[in-house]
Parts: sequence; structure tokens; C-alpha cells
Amino acid sequence: MTPRAAVVVTGSELVRGGRRDANGPFLAAELTNRGLEPDRITIVGDEPDELETALREGLQGDLLVISGGLGPTHDDRTVELLARAAGLEATVDPELERDIEQISRRIAERFRRPYAEFEQGVRKQATVPEGGRVIGIAGTAPGLVVETDGAVAVVLPGPPPELRRLWQAALEDEAVQRVLARAEPPHRRILRVYGVSESAVARALAEVGGEPEGVQATICAHDGEIWVELFGEGEALAVAMRQALAPSVFAEDDRPVEELVLEEARAQGITVATAESCTGGLVAARLTSVAGASDVFRGGLVAYENDVKLSQLNVPEETLAAHGAVSAETAAAMAAGARESLGADVAVAVTGVAGPGGGTREKPVGLVYLHASGPEGERARELLLPGDREAVRRRATAAALHLVRELLARSRHNSV
Amino acid sequence: MTPRAAVVVTGSELVRGGRRDANGPFLAAELTNRGLEPDRITIVGDEPDELETALREGLQGDLLVISGGLGPTHDDRTVELLARAAGLEATVDPELERDIEQISRRIAERFRRPYAEFEQGVRKQATVPEGGRVIGIAGTAPGLVVETDGAVAVVLPGPPPELRRLWQAALEDEAVQRVLARAEPPHRRILRVYGVSESAVARALAEVGGEPEGVQATICAHDGEIWVELFGEGEALAVAMRQALAPSVFAEDDRPVEELVLEEARAQGITVATAESCTGGLVAARLTSVAGASDVFRGGLVAYENDVKLSQLNVPEETLAAHGAVSAETAAAMAAGARESLGADVAVAVTGVAGPGGGTREKPVGLVYLHASGPEGERARELLLPGDREAVRRRATAAALHLVRELLARSRHNSV
Repeated sequence: MTPRAAVVVTGSELVRGGRRDANGPFLAAELTNRGLEPDRITIVGDEPDELETALREGLQGDLLVISGGLGPTHDDRTVELLARAAGLEATVDPELERDIEQISRRIAERFRRPYAEFEQGVRKQATVPEGGRVIGIAGTAPGLVVETDGAVAVVLPGPPPELRRLWQAALEDEAVQRVLARAEPPHRRILRVYGVSESAVARALAEVGGEPEGVQATICAHDGEIWVELFGEGEALAVAMRQALAPSVFAEDDRPVEELVLEEARAQGITVATAESCTGGLVAARLTSVAGASDVFRGGLVAYENDVKLSQLNVPEETLAAHGAVSAETAAAMAAGARESLGADVAVAVTGVAGPGGGTREKPVGLVYLHASGPEGERARELLLPGDREAVRRRATAAALHLVRELLARSRHNSV
Repeated sequence: MTPRAAVVVTGSELVRGGRRDANGPFLAAELTNRGLEPDRITIVGDEPDELETALREGLQGDLLVISGGLGPTHDDRTVELLARAAGLEATVDPELERDIEQISRRIAERFRRPYAEFEQGVRKQATVPEGGRVIGIAGTAPGLVVETDGAVAVVLPGPPPELRRLWQAALEDEAVQRVLARAEPPHRRILRVYGVSESAVARALAEVGGEPEGVQATICAHDGEIWVELFGEGEALAVAMRQALAPSVFAEDDRPVEELVLEEARAQGITVATAESCTGGLVAARLTSVAGASDVFRGGLVAYENDVKLSQLNVPEETLAAHGAVSAETAAAMAAGARESLGADVAVAVTGVAGPGGGTREKPVGLVYLHASGPEGERARELLLPGDREAVRRRATAAALHLVRELLARSRHNSV
């Protein structure tokens, strides 16, 4: 039988909604990729009963991964409650205590505080359930692997970079590996489609005969892209869907569109620039989020004010006067101007009404014009995007990146 | 006794880690602000047993809010399983069926499909647990309030904008209001501090005598800011902490720093521009995320390539040659150049090494120079930020916004 996994994330700010948890999704993806899709992710505060219940439930499976609650103060109770839920004693590990003491003495020195202030916290953080193994220390908090009657628990610190680092260490642990060895990493295929609706994709799936026995297909919209994920032995279905949906299929992996754009531009030896109004820098920010973007991306202009469009992007005053800042003509002029002033081969421009104010009858909130311009041609698009300011900006950003992707795909096609 | 609340979020992509849930945090904040901090947020997939268990647990409290699982297909099981968990019959609501049919016929027409294909889905989505009240329809999915033996369940659709809209409708429901009336909205105060460490704030709290009876204080880092939140009758403690931490306290509400910057600039009649290298547009994107930014923010330059810094920001070639692109001198020149070429009163510049590549012994990954320049003076900062590319960029962005905030606060001070 496939082993069962659960994730428990603790943090009082999380149940108050003050912060969006990143650790649950990270751990869920890590587990799913190893064939151990978690039954649930439970987010609890620092209320002891709730946390203990969540841990107890998690221990009913085979692998429980816990994030947070490892600090030096009394309201960080993960280790104590895990021991209680598992029916294990928790005692101070002398070697671990020495390690944490050393770190804490350095901190005490740096802040010119007497070490005595830290002593209680050090003992608390050096307390480990019976048989627990230390897999590393983050700050002064140890990551642990604890074997209980029937389950393996992995205890990780809350700060995401530390959690990720110690999760790698947990994967080296023998008990964790024993559970993972019983799981089978899923056969997962993905087809990413752009420019068709979710229901059209669903119809295509039905028309090729739907899910065969043993294959699970999910269809999900991601910011304008439609993702078709096939779990199980989906090779034949993938072939059929690829055929049914071509030429809208643009990728068969998870990489974000900005990465695909940069890769294609790099392959063609083309440089890229941006000119943005309503997206306010988001297109440039996504392109530069990719390591190594600098060999393709030259720069971008956020032209919020009209006279910045005039002076920096050389948008003709007549164009603005005749068609307005939110128009296909202005978008085209912005793209041309960005190519010139930023010295790039290809530029993409965005102008639109992000809202909530500024909409008119003719140019309502959500109206966005995109224009991509390159040495081998132009590509333009008009969109009417639903949602609030954040959603309009996010969707316009994704659409702009896809427009560049399409332009680059065409120029590759032409040059072949 | 204070009523108890829980949130259940369902979606198979969420337990696979493919997507980060936004509904749980939204609902948690909504409940917390009304004095009903949820015991837990449970995220489950579409596995029926898991979902039913989570619903059953949630019904043990007084208010259960559920997100997702309302679609027309068989794997959307929220209503069916809620009815089962609550021991209620679920039957087709004829009036609701007519409403959903109407919507579905329009969809069928638009996609030129026979309505028969929709019929089963319509019946499914019109199925309501005994006594359930329809609070609105999102797409073809109804939002519901269901009273069970001892609890009230609110069923909301998964897409965040629709969830938010129908949550407002749920707040109008009498049964929901009865539960809320028994809760007392928390007395919450917040002090936001910048430029001091989390441990220094903790020390300040200890030195003013710690938490008095009935007051809970939490200290939390948010991208360089330290948030001190006081729950309960914390007026005296707030006064003492404000005194102990002044002048580092910069805000006593939750508004993001970009909003504070825009507000202050607006009050002073000052326009703002940005010049970014490693943050690649994120500073501009945060400033323009605020509705109405256009009356203060003129524009920004993302100068990724050195020759864009030269041509668009007039950074002297000698400055780049002598000090390099990542230097205090280049940051200062970028800020001056942005003021000039974008015609703004104040500009902030960021240049740094975001990583993972590009670091050297002298200029390691995480080294960032910030410079803010205005008519009444300059402000500069050198940072060595921990974390990966994303974290360095995010933290540098926050720090840049704070630098402008500080510059504006000083010019206000000077002009008084």
C-alpha cells in the first residue's frame, strides 16, 4: 500500500490571516513529486490543544512533516506536543545543548546581553523526543526526525529558506528514505495551452475519449494558461490531446513563461526590453526574476505619466491626443520607442486601465492593449480583463509575456 | 463562551503544492477581525474521506467556512459530503435549478453545445442540504449557508474574487450574524518599527515590563519591518512601547509601506520616480499596486544593462568604470539621473547582486546599494541581504521603499 503523508504548519499569524503560508505548498509539492501526495495540510496557531490534535492526526499516517513552532520561547511548543502526541519522553540532548549554547553565546555577545538570559531557551531548544535525530540547526532551532510507533515525523523550522535547507537534510535520513522507498513517484505529464478556453480544453478531452482507466486528468487555469495534467500512464492520452490542441500547446513542463521567453530569445541571439504603463514594472520584474536574465533583458521603462511616454519612449504627441494613452496606437508606439531607446531587438508594451478608478464607457476598467515589436514583425492584442486592480495587472503581465513568446516563436519559424 | 470557527479549503492542486491558497488567509483574517480567530485552516484534496473528515471536524465548532469543491463535475463533492457530515438530506432546489439552468443555457449557446450536456451538472449544482439558504451564484455554483445541529456552515466557491463577493453575502445571513454576535472583535493595536532588530524589540518589551494581564503581544518580522501586535486592552503597553522604540516607529496601521510613501509624497506635493537594477521593476510595481498612484508616481527605469544606465540615466562612464555597477556611487548617479530624465522631485535607485551567480569576494550575492535623492537632500544605504534571488530582490525592494519613506519624513520635518 502507498504510504500516507500529512503536513502540519504552525504559526499564530497564519490562522489570523496575517501571512500567507509558503511552507505547506512547498512540502506538498516535494511529497507529491515523490509519490506521497499529502492527505491534508493543516494550519494551526499556537493553541496547544489544536496543535496536539493536528499532530496526533498526522501521526496516523506514515510520514508527518511539521513546519514551525521551534523558537526558544514558551509559546513554541511543537517538540513538546509532538512528544506527547507520540507518547514519547522528551529530554535535553547534551551534545545538541552544547551546539546551541555556542551559537547563543555568540548572539549574547553580539547584543551585549548576559548569557543567562538565553539559558532557558537553549535548554528548551535542545529538548528532543526519545530517539529523535538532529538533522541540522537553523538559527538556534534544530530540525529533527522522530520515529514513532508506526510513523516518521520530520520537524522543520518555520522560516522558508531554513525549512528548505533542512528538508534536504531530512531526505538523507534513513527512516524518511524507508517511507519514500514505499512510494512510487507519479507519472505526470503536462500540456500547457494558451489562447483557448478551459471549456474548449475540457471538450477536447471528452472528444478524444476522456480519461482511460488508470489515468487522471485535471484541467486548470493559471493566469490565462490552461494546464492539462495527466497522472498515471497517460502517454496515449497526451499524444491525442497534443494533436487535438496543437498549435495552442506551447510547453510540456512547469517553467514559467518568462523563462521560456528568455530561453527562446537567448537561442535566437535576441535582446528584449519592456515598456509598461498599467502593469507598472511587473513584466520587467517577472523577466528579471529568472537567474541569468541579464544576457537577454536590457531594461524597461515604466511610463506612468504621459509626458514620460513622450520624452522617454518618443510616443508622438499626436498619437496620445488622437487615440489616448490606452489605445492600440499608443501601445505600438511605446514598443517601438522602447526598442529604440533601450537598444533592444524586441520590445513589448502594455497600456491599460487597471482600476478601480479611471474607467470610462469607451475604455472600461480591465481594457488593456499589448504590443510586441521585433525585427521580423509585430504582434498586438486587445484584452478586456476581469477582476480587481491586482488581478488585471497580473493577467495583463502574463498576457504580455505570452505575446513576446508568440512573436519569438514566429520569428524562429520564419528563420527555419 | 467565545464561539469557535474553522476554515476548510478544498482543491486537489492545493495538496499537490501546485498553487498557494489565498482563500484560507483571507477568511482567517475576516474571522479574526470579528473576534473569531479560527482554530485551524485545513487544506484537503478531493479525496472524499479526507474532505468529509475535515468537514466533520469543522462542524464541531460554531462556524465552519468552506472554500471550493462546488463545480459541476463528480469530483467536486463539497455539498454532498457536507450534507453527509451534518446528517442532512440533500435535494435539488427547484428555484435554484431554474436559475442555474438559465445561466447554463446561455453558456451552451455561446459554445454551440447541446444543453443536454449540461443537464446533469446543473442538477448537481442545484443540490442543497436540507434548510440550506442560497446566498448568491458564482458562475454556475451557488454559495450556501447551512445550519446543522449546533453549527453554521458557509459554503463558498473557490475562485478568490467570487469567494470574496459571496463572503460579503454570507455576512448578511441571519444565522451567521447570530454566531458573530457572540464574538467580540479583538482590541488590536499595532506598532510598526523599521531599522531595529527583532531581538531589540523583544528586549524593549521585556524592559517595559512585558505583557500585562489580559494582553497578548506578538513580535513578528515582515520583510525588514518589525510588527508589534497587541491584543486585548493594550493601551498602556502601546504607550510604553511607542516611547521605548521611537523614533523607529513609523506606522500604527497595516497599510503597506508603498501606500505610506505615496500618501506622504501626495501631502507634500512631491512626485516620485524609480531607477532599478537588481530589483528589475519590483519597486515600481509595488508603488503602482496602489490605486491612484498616478498622481504621485511618474515612472521608472529598469536599467539592467550598463549602457542603459549610461544612456537613460546618464550615469557617468567614469563612475561605472571606477566603482562598478554595484556601488554607492552608481546608485547615487542612478537616482540623480532618474530625477532628471523622468522629471520627478524624488527618485530612489537600487543596484545590487541578486544572485545566484554574479557574486565576487568584494561584491558578494546579497550586496545592495540604495540611494534616494530629493530636493532637500539625499539618503543612502548599503545592505548585505541573506537568502536566494527572490528573497534578496524582495528585501531590497522593501528597503528601497523605506528609504524613500525616510527621506520624505525628513523633508516634512525640515519644512515644519
